[in-house]
Amino acid sequence: MRIARFSIDGNVAFGVVEGDASTEGGPVLDIIKGHPFAEFERSGQKIPLSKVRLLPPVLPNKVVGIGRNYAEHAAELGNEVPDAPVAFFKPSTSVIGPGDPIAYPPFSNEVHHEAELAVVIGRMCREVPRERVKDVILGYTCANDVTARDIQQREKQWARAKGFDSSCPLGPWVETELDPSDLGIMCTVNGEQRQLGRTSDMVRSIEDLIVHITEAMTLLPGDVVLTGTPAGVGPLNVGDEVAVTIEGIGTLTNKVIKRG
Amino acid sequence: MRIARFSIDGNVAFGVVEGDASTEGGPVLDIIKGHPFAEFERSGQKIPLSKVRLLPPVLPNKVVGIGRNYAEHAAELGNEVPDAPVAFFKPSTSVIGPGDPIAYPPFSNEVHHEAELAVVIGRMCREVPRERVKDVILGYTCANDVTARDIQQREKQWARAKGFDSSCPLGPWVETELDPSDLGIMCTVNGEQRQLGRTSDMVRSIEDLIVHITEAMTLLPGDVVLTGTPAGVGPLNVGDEVAVTIEGIGTLTNKVIKRG
Repeated sequence: MRIARFSIDGNVAFGVVEGDASTEGGPVLDIIKGHPFAEFERSGQKIPLSKVRLLPPVLPNKVVGIGRNYAEHAAELGNEVPDAPVAFFKPSTSVIGPGDPIAYPPFSNEVHHEAELAVVIGRMCREVPRERVKDVILGYTCANDVTARDIQQREKQWARAKGFDSSCPLGPWVETELDPSDLGIMCTVNGEQRQLGRTSDMVRSIEDLIVHITEAMTLLPGDVVLTGTPAGVGPLNVGDEVAVTIEGIGTLTNKVIKRG
Repeated sequence: MRIARFSIDGNVAFGVVEGDASTEGGPVLDIIKGHPFAEFERSGQKIPLSKVRLLPPVLPNKVVGIGRNYAEHAAELGNEVPDAPVAFFKPSTSVIGPGDPIAYPPFSNEVHHEAELAVVIGRMCREVPRERVKDVILGYTCANDVTARDIQQREKQWARAKGFDSSCPLGPWVETELDPSDLGIMCTVNGEQRQLGRTSDMVRSIEDLIVHITEAMTLLPGDVVLTGTPAGVGPLNVGDEVAVTIEGIGTLTNKVIKRG
């Protein structure tokens, strides 16, 4: 099931996406009664997807990113695969939705795309045993872990390099029925392929990552775990259109603009 | 003015603290009508401070910490004063209030206290010019940037070392009328002095820090900026009582317990 968050005429709601581009009349949203993190049902009231504005599919309290989780990507930046997952935070103020602009931050001259599979947490959890990890996951979406590479290399901690406003596009929706273990991930810039990988190449599995993070901290419903980016990262420039596509989920597209 | 957040009989409210330990009958809270981040007035309805449970004085969306902002502390851990402030995040799930327990995280064997002056942001802001910094600050409180030192040294990014549950005690209240430029900061463990410093020894001023952070990201009302810790950091053990006292604000006390 694909759960989207959207606005129409100033109202915000969740809906289940039915159909796709090949469906006659295009895909529609069946508006949800209740909340996706609790009990809910489909209302049967349907709106064409083309009529709404998609929002970030969740409003995370925190986003936990993982660095260097694909060996080829670690190597392309001259880094070794670390002994333990490299966990960092992106704040809620960095989150934007599908179609929202990535505002190029004036303090950087080298902003990179990083296409990533995002795990959306469905229930409050801490010290999750490996075998229970699947129970705390609501589903999966696409993420772009946009990174100011020059700042990342200059500053020891990545708060500014990976935490600036609009550095965390998420979407287009949460896919709740998906085996994430071997999905294609692609990033294009202006239609040209830049990153291509498979989630089966992750150094640490999603289970490992959730165990590692929740050993230290509580994850809340709507929190997001980014699982690392495959090789092929590269610069974004003002005017570019960057798209992250993950097999079985869909495509997250954002334009890069000058910060206003 | 001192603004506290508290609960009594299951209700949560803000109040202005009147009087202190020397006042006959002890200090009282004048309950606030409205919200401290917007228009508010004192209701005149007063409750003895001893009757309430103080809560974290704000519920930050994010806490931005700053590493190595006192030269003597950087030196005691064998680090140099960095060229630029070292900014990192502590998540909202790490925040606890005065009197709340610090739960010793099982993944660490070396948890340290770090007494710090905390800046509470009063209004949404980004790219704040130096001369406007004072306008975005609601006030100041005490913080303990509790750190798993062994994990911090082992893991490149500090998300787990400084972001575990209960690693960010804040309180006891927000002092809104205070010149923060030269205040004494002290940390005691079981009544014994461990850290002693003055905010005038900060490498970068509060103005510098807010400019640096907001160059990258939006701060929201209730967000907190930690300003670094003076020399004297050291271990906490289960059973310890740790207290951070800042001149002109008050004392934040927490006990260390075994995580349940």
